[in-house]
Amino acid sequence: MPISPALIKEFQGVIGAEQVFTEDADLQCYSYDAAVLTPVMPALAIAPTTQEQLCKCVKLAYDNDMPITVRGSGTNLSGSTIPQKAGSVVILTNRLNRILEINEEDLYAVVEPGVITAQFAAAVTAKGLFYPPDPGSQSISTLGGNVAHNAGGLRGLKYGVTKDYIMGMEIVDFNGELVKTGSRTVKYVTGYNMAALMAASEGTLGIFSNIIFKLVPPPKASKAMLAEFDDVNKASASVAGIISGHIVPCTLEFLDNNCIKYVEADTKAGLPVDAAAILLIEVDGGHPQLVEEDAAKVMEVCRKCGSTNIRIAQTAEEKFKIWEARRNALPALARARPTTVLEDATVPRSQIPAMVAAVNEIAKKYKLEIGTFGHAGDGNLHPTILCDRRDKEEFARVEAAVDEIFDVALKLKGTLSGEHGIGLAKAKWMEKETNRATIDFNLRLRRALDPKMLFNAGKKFV
Amino acid sequence: MPISPALIKEFQGVIGAEQVFTEDADLQCYSYDAAVLTPVMPALAIAPTTQEQLCKCVKLAYDNDMPITVRGSGTNLSGSTIPQKAGSVVILTNRLNRILEINEEDLYAVVEPGVITAQFAAAVTAKGLFYPPDPGSQSISTLGGNVAHNAGGLRGLKYGVTKDYIMGMEIVDFNGELVKTGSRTVKYVTGYNMAALMAASEGTLGIFSNIIFKLVPPPKASKAMLAEFDDVNKASASVAGIISGHIVPCTLEFLDNNCIKYVEADTKAGLPVDAAAILLIEVDGGHPQLVEEDAAKVMEVCRKCGSTNIRIAQTAEEKFKIWEARRNALPALARARPTTVLEDATVPRSQIPAMVAAVNEIAKKYKLEIGTFGHAGDGNLHPTILCDRRDKEEFARVEAAVDEIFDVALKLKGTLSGEHGIGLAKAKWMEKETNRATIDFNLRLRRALDPKMLFNAGKKFV
Repeated sequence: MPISPALIKEFQGVIGAEQVFTEDADLQCYSYDAAVLTPVMPALAIAPTTQEQLCKCVKLAYDNDMPITVRGSGTNLSGSTIPQKAGSVVILTNRLNRILEINEEDLYAVVEPGVITAQFAAAVTAKGLFYPPDPGSQSISTLGGNVAHNAGGLRGLKYGVTKDYIMGMEIVDFNGELVKTGSRTVKYVTGYNMAALMAASEGTLGIFSNIIFKLVPPPKASKAMLAEFDDVNKASASVAGIISGHIVPCTLEFLDNNCIKYVEADTKAGLPVDAAAILLIEVDGGHPQLVEEDAAKVMEVCRKCGSTNIRIAQTAEEKFKIWEARRNALPALARARPTTVLEDATVPRSQIPAMVAAVNEIAKKYKLEIGTFGHAGDGNLHPTILCDRRDKEEFARVEAAVDEIFDVALKLKGTLSGEHGIGLAKAKWMEKETNRATIDFNLRLRRALDPKMLFNAGKKFV
Repeated sequence: MPISPALIKEFQGVIGAEQVFTEDADLQCYSYDAAVLTPVMPALAIAPTTQEQLCKCVKLAYDNDMPITVRGSGTNLSGSTIPQKAGSVVILTNRLNRILEINEEDLYAVVEPGVITAQFAAAVTAKGLFYPPDPGSQSISTLGGNVAHNAGGLRGLKYGVTKDYIMGMEIVDFNGELVKTGSRTVKYVTGYNMAALMAASEGTLGIFSNIIFKLVPPPKASKAMLAEFDDVNKASASVAGIISGHIVPCTLEFLDNNCIKYVEADTKAGLPVDAAAILLIEVDGGHPQLVEEDAAKVMEVCRKCGSTNIRIAQTAEEKFKIWEARRNALPALARARPTTVLEDATVPRSQIPAMVAAVNEIAKKYKLEIGTFGHAGDGNLHPTILCDRRDKEEFARVEAAVDEIFDVALKLKGTLSGEHGIGLAKAKWMEKETNRATIDFNLRLRRALDPKMLFNAGKKFV
């Protein structure tokens, strides 16, 4: 469905011709995201630069029945920035990218949705404070997208995820009006907890105009280590032992042998390519003595569980190498085959051994190569299937394997998605995890806030 | 509006005659709560004992157009458990009071809504874990009520409030069907964040059937102290200094001279009755050394800001006395005059000096006695007006003073309510804090989940 020249003119009138994109070459850029799904071209893309423009654009699109997909950097892994309906407008937030306030006395910041996560974190660090959420894509992801997907990251175990840092928000509703929720105060019970509802709403309930984030004092010391195991179960047992020993590392990551090999080939970081699995662990805290003792306890647990070797990063450079290796897990796997299907089914931590075993069984059964890495401390693993989408026979096996991974996660009292979102990819699975009444409840809420179902139409619930 | 005998029989059929209350003497008990508001008698009170009974009762009431008010222990301070509409049914949760699971490996618990907060906290402590939220009424309040009001408490500064511990929930919708939200996993983005939305929903969106709470390892050491000040501003400056010095005490409480005098008269705890204000501070952490150093830093800040005397609790008994004194602030004030109007307007922490000064000005202007205490570290003060509701002239001054307190809080970028809720008491103020679009957005959501507007009818939004 092409958009009428008159309507294009109206958008141009609101935000200026140079902020309105209609050329094929431009629209191509906004037709896909980081999920492995079929691209769909929008009819129009626009880049408002002020809150007022954003409100007017939303109203104009909504009044003209245009499906609206908001796009930060398109790093999401669930297809939630791919427009699904004909005649969609993509609203780009990349020019709404101002850090409006960093308040050092009251420990909060106010930002526009298009601010890049890592740039924000750096600006906060420069003021002597700390914004902990660090999704894998932080160097390009936007804070608005992080909120829309409740992005996780490596520090979730101790510090929580994006939702734990949202204090308040202004949201543009379908009338183009500004809705206020939350506050600059740490306690707030005025009105419904709409700011929290926006976490993981995937652009389906309203458009974020600005966000108030909580900041915290940074840790005063930290220590990173790498523990090798000759058996995946010993690594899993170590994770359970650390948690039940009441140590909460800031990061507790798992890589299986497949991942280790690909990362090492890629980065030459010195990873033990013969290990069945490694754990990458960082403890931090308010006092060096505490960190020393926690690190010692972690090592003791790993040793007792059968770790064959434990290395502690002695320098900042060694520490950087450990995390660089972890951050390279996905890119390294992605380079191995044309298509990478990355899942994030999540289970209670104690079920990690069962989940890892099941994934390996599934890989065998469907004759697929699966590398598993992820946030073991959160029970949030990323089984990553290396394949070629063009090979229909193989991809059918991939889809069957993914279905089975979800089945196992639910059987282990887990969930479909720990941090990537539902989007297009997992919508059909929602009812299996919950029930029809739950889907209806969610849909009633969605329809109330978006009566024409134009906000990210076709996503999350089907 | 009396309820028909046939409908009473139907309720009796669902849950047994002994769980259905229709006598005046019973209904009187459920006609009021801890807010200073006019009691309203329900038509019926019922006490389901199982999830299945709860679902059937909600459906029966909803199908018969009965307004539904859920009641835990009625400790809320905003009128949200007072039935407002004729012909209401009060659903009591006190027989839905089982702790269903405390999982030590995965650090969560599953409870029914009627479990008493302090009993739950004790059961968790007995397993070597920690449930931090500690609202003032914890010895009688219920966890369901805590969620419905997003109850705060003394530990909010470091540990957050009730919403920060909700992992998931089952909710009975208006059809009497069970809606599932959240998970036993720490990361979860499947469906809307309904569990978070239920925090502070005040019984208006659905009825909680069970709740999954996050648990954490307990701190390994703590230290409590009491700092005296001859000037309220010096106490306020200390609060700001502690926070901006990147120390996060688990508790940081403020009492002004009025409160000190009433509490001391009541408890003989040895409080300094001549002090203009005191701060009660506790630091805790994972290591005794960290706690020692944090305590030393806190004392240094207080001294620099002009504290005239600082006492550290040397024994568990002395520590208990400090917190006993704080917990007695409200009861002690409440005994002074027939009526106690307790507010919880909240401001960004740095605005506490301005807020305290404004409250004192307002007290003078309206010739009222106001004692102010509260969670200074959260910017969450409780100006408490001592009065007699039967004195109409005085109470008119009280109402004018409350209005002015809200005005000041909003001017200081604060909020109407930090932790008590909106209920009946503050509904008329909602639009002033936000705007009409926000109220409409909230109401659209509410109507979607409760089309007949029967869930706690007449509350929160007007």
